[in-house]
Amino acid sequence: MKIKGNIVIGQSGGPTAAINATLAGVFCEGKNLCEGKIFGMLGGVEGLLAENMIDMKEYLKTDNDVELLKRTPSSYLGSCRFKLPQPVEGNEVYEKLFEIFEKYDIKGFFYIGGNDSMDTVKKLSAYNKFKNTDIKFMGVPKTIDNDLVKTDHTPGFGSAAKFVATVTKELVRDSLVYDLKSVTIVEIMGRDAGWLTAASALAKGDDCEGAAMVLLPEVPFDYEYVKSRVKELTEGDKSLVITVSEGVRTKDGKYVCELGSEKGTDAFGHTMLTGTAATIAAMLKKDLGIKTRAVELSTLQRCASHIASLTDINESFAVGSAAVKAAAQGQSGKMALLKRVSDNPYICETDTADVNEIANLAKEVPRSMINERGDNVTEEFITYARPLIEGELVPIFENGLPSHIKR
Amino acid sequence: MKIKGNIVIGQSGGPTAAINATLAGVFCEGKNLCEGKIFGMLGGVEGLLAENMIDMKEYLKTDNDVELLKRTPSSYLGSCRFKLPQPVEGNEVYEKLFEIFEKYDIKGFFYIGGNDSMDTVKKLSAYNKFKNTDIKFMGVPKTIDNDLVKTDHTPGFGSAAKFVATVTKELVRDSLVYDLKSVTIVEIMGRDAGWLTAASALAKGDDCEGAAMVLLPEVPFDYEYVKSRVKELTEGDKSLVITVSEGVRTKDGKYVCELGSEKGTDAFGHTMLTGTAATIAAMLKKDLGIKTRAVELSTLQRCASHIASLTDINESFAVGSAAVKAAAQGQSGKMALLKRVSDNPYICETDTADVNEIANLAKEVPRSMINERGDNVTEEFITYARPLIEGELVPIFENGLPSHIKR
Repeated sequence: MKIKGNIVIGQSGGPTAAINATLAGVFCEGKNLCEGKIFGMLGGVEGLLAENMIDMKEYLKTDNDVELLKRTPSSYLGSCRFKLPQPVEGNEVYEKLFEIFEKYDIKGFFYIGGNDSMDTVKKLSAYNKFKNTDIKFMGVPKTIDNDLVKTDHTPGFGSAAKFVATVTKELVRDSLVYDLKSVTIVEIMGRDAGWLTAASALAKGDDCEGAAMVLLPEVPFDYEYVKSRVKELTEGDKSLVITVSEGVRTKDGKYVCELGSEKGTDAFGHTMLTGTAATIAAMLKKDLGIKTRAVELSTLQRCASHIASLTDINESFAVGSAAVKAAAQGQSGKMALLKRVSDNPYICETDTADVNEIANLAKEVPRSMINERGDNVTEEFITYARPLIEGELVPIFENGLPSHIKR
Repeated sequence: MKIKGNIVIGQSGGPTAAINATLAGVFCEGKNLCEGKIFGMLGGVEGLLAENMIDMKEYLKTDNDVELLKRTPSSYLGSCRFKLPQPVEGNEVYEKLFEIFEKYDIKGFFYIGGNDSMDTVKKLSAYNKFKNTDIKFMGVPKTIDNDLVKTDHTPGFGSAAKFVATVTKELVRDSLVYDLKSVTIVEIMGRDAGWLTAASALAKGDDCEGAAMVLLPEVPFDYEYVKSRVKELTEGDKSLVITVSEGVRTKDGKYVCELGSEKGTDAFGHTMLTGTAATIAAMLKKDLGIKTRAVELSTLQRCASHIASLTDINESFAVGSAAVKAAAQGQSGKMALLKRVSDNPYICETDTADVNEIANLAKEVPRSMINERGDNVTEEFITYARPLIEGELVPIFENGLPSHIKR
């Protein structure tokens, strides 16, 4: 079955190193299964409302363009953080959107993003009950946070995890160079779910001591415990590395960084966090008289396409493609997802699930993947996460740097 | 000519992604040109004083070990920051060192490091006038700062520059994703010399807008100028990226991070030191009402061997090898260095120079490599720096991560 008419694709939420691979997957399968044009909304739904769209076939003309797109971090089409209102009949935002759908003969709507983006798909899909069109609304997951339910993992996580584990390995080597006892605290993204911080544990192996502690937001942060453990582990002038999620909280629910500096909120009212590692480093330095250093991986961890996971990029592409196939088969109000068939050999297939069962929910690291002391991961996590960082999508280097594509 | 007896190698100062490639160069040429053992001092001269040494042939047994060494960041032998006293006859530190040289039949001393390490070579060489031994003292340069004189550039700079330029490219893509006007300020290492910050300018090209400003310590930091320039460049809701050296200072000589009304304290009253980028970000946010973000590349830029420059690694190895050859030819009190023969095609040879003309001196970015406004580099810098980031030393991946070697 082909999609008769045009389709439109958008990207939303924070960028990742793999979100453009998903865009490439939707685009390439769209060329196969859609009879009409493939529109790209510039700046998500906000851009769509302004009819700010491009004809993607005029931008991605060659296979090389698609290969570059897969290797380009951030969102090629731009992004937004726009929350749709409740889908009440007659609402003018929805009416406007459906007018645009009609004007451009849109039969398929594909939205690549995280939780908030799935909320958009859910609401559009709900509003479609009033409009009764044959437009298919499909969500396509991406988030470095790996916190979407129903899917085994999220596209974008594997590449961010590979960067985090790689630089943790490098930072461990760096931190052990002096005889002087020191504690390096590495802050990793993840407000509520510790998946990405947990990925730092993948650094440990025959050639790397790994992080001495891996502190996740799933476990209440107990400074007294951390302090005594650091004291114990640094006996005999040993240096160590601790990885910590930006979102760790005390048992009273206070963010560690709230014990310190200034903070703001984003468009969704989420608290914006900075300085968790710096706060802990300052506390340990004062209390133990140890040399400490704080390293924030910051934005790099979501855009380091130069060390993308091939598994992740291939899966990100496959999920985009699966969303188009599902729409062509008549599915709507669904999110394409990854279903793990086996760990060894690692096999993952694509599938779909009702977006209502996904939007606004979050998946945390289960207790069974965290050790008893609550300061590191278990083998179960390693078994789960290791395959996701396997393989490299080698950049196309030009003048010594990875090549990208831009509009 | 062969070196009759044993040699000893040390690494000193801050680690880089290429310092172990230099170690590999000294080791491999040492196997050719030294009849005896190749000792590695653990933790630089400090380790040597404690006779804390290894027989390197027992650690690096295979070609694969050497290949892994070239791909392992940080200093394999450990490091120290130890300044030798003035070489006054009879000084006990020197007497102890020369005793150790005699005890271990050391005929060649190779010290890999930056300015301070060249000071060590200079002083040992000077003290040798009192002792009148036939030991050859050779310095081998490394520093990401690229601030050593006499050499065209320093081993380690190219790889750090490649990482800096690569992530600047990625951060530019990331920062332009939202329609909301924003300024991303990226802080790069370099206290007195802006070479590494200048390398961020390499990101600019057909597929990248590059950094809008590149602020080096060679030019006094003028906040009023930066503010008005940002205001001008963000007209029409444009977002931009600025790269800044950690060492930028006002014309009164004040570090920007010292300007801080933005120094906070945490709940425990600990002072939270704000970085240069964070200080500028806070100031611009306050004065222009623009969304700002600070990214500190931190330690990553000196240990990101996963994206090492092949040119840099090969040259780092070659310089190590050249130091041994020079010693075998009877040279002493010299530093091995890189001499550029031509830009196009890029050709660089090794040479040596008197360590007295190098130690304790620093090379800044010349004014001709900085534009008139003082807020970016000129083509002359690009021509100079581009060849140094060319080529990739592909990591040996295992379990999805670059493999390293550790003692």
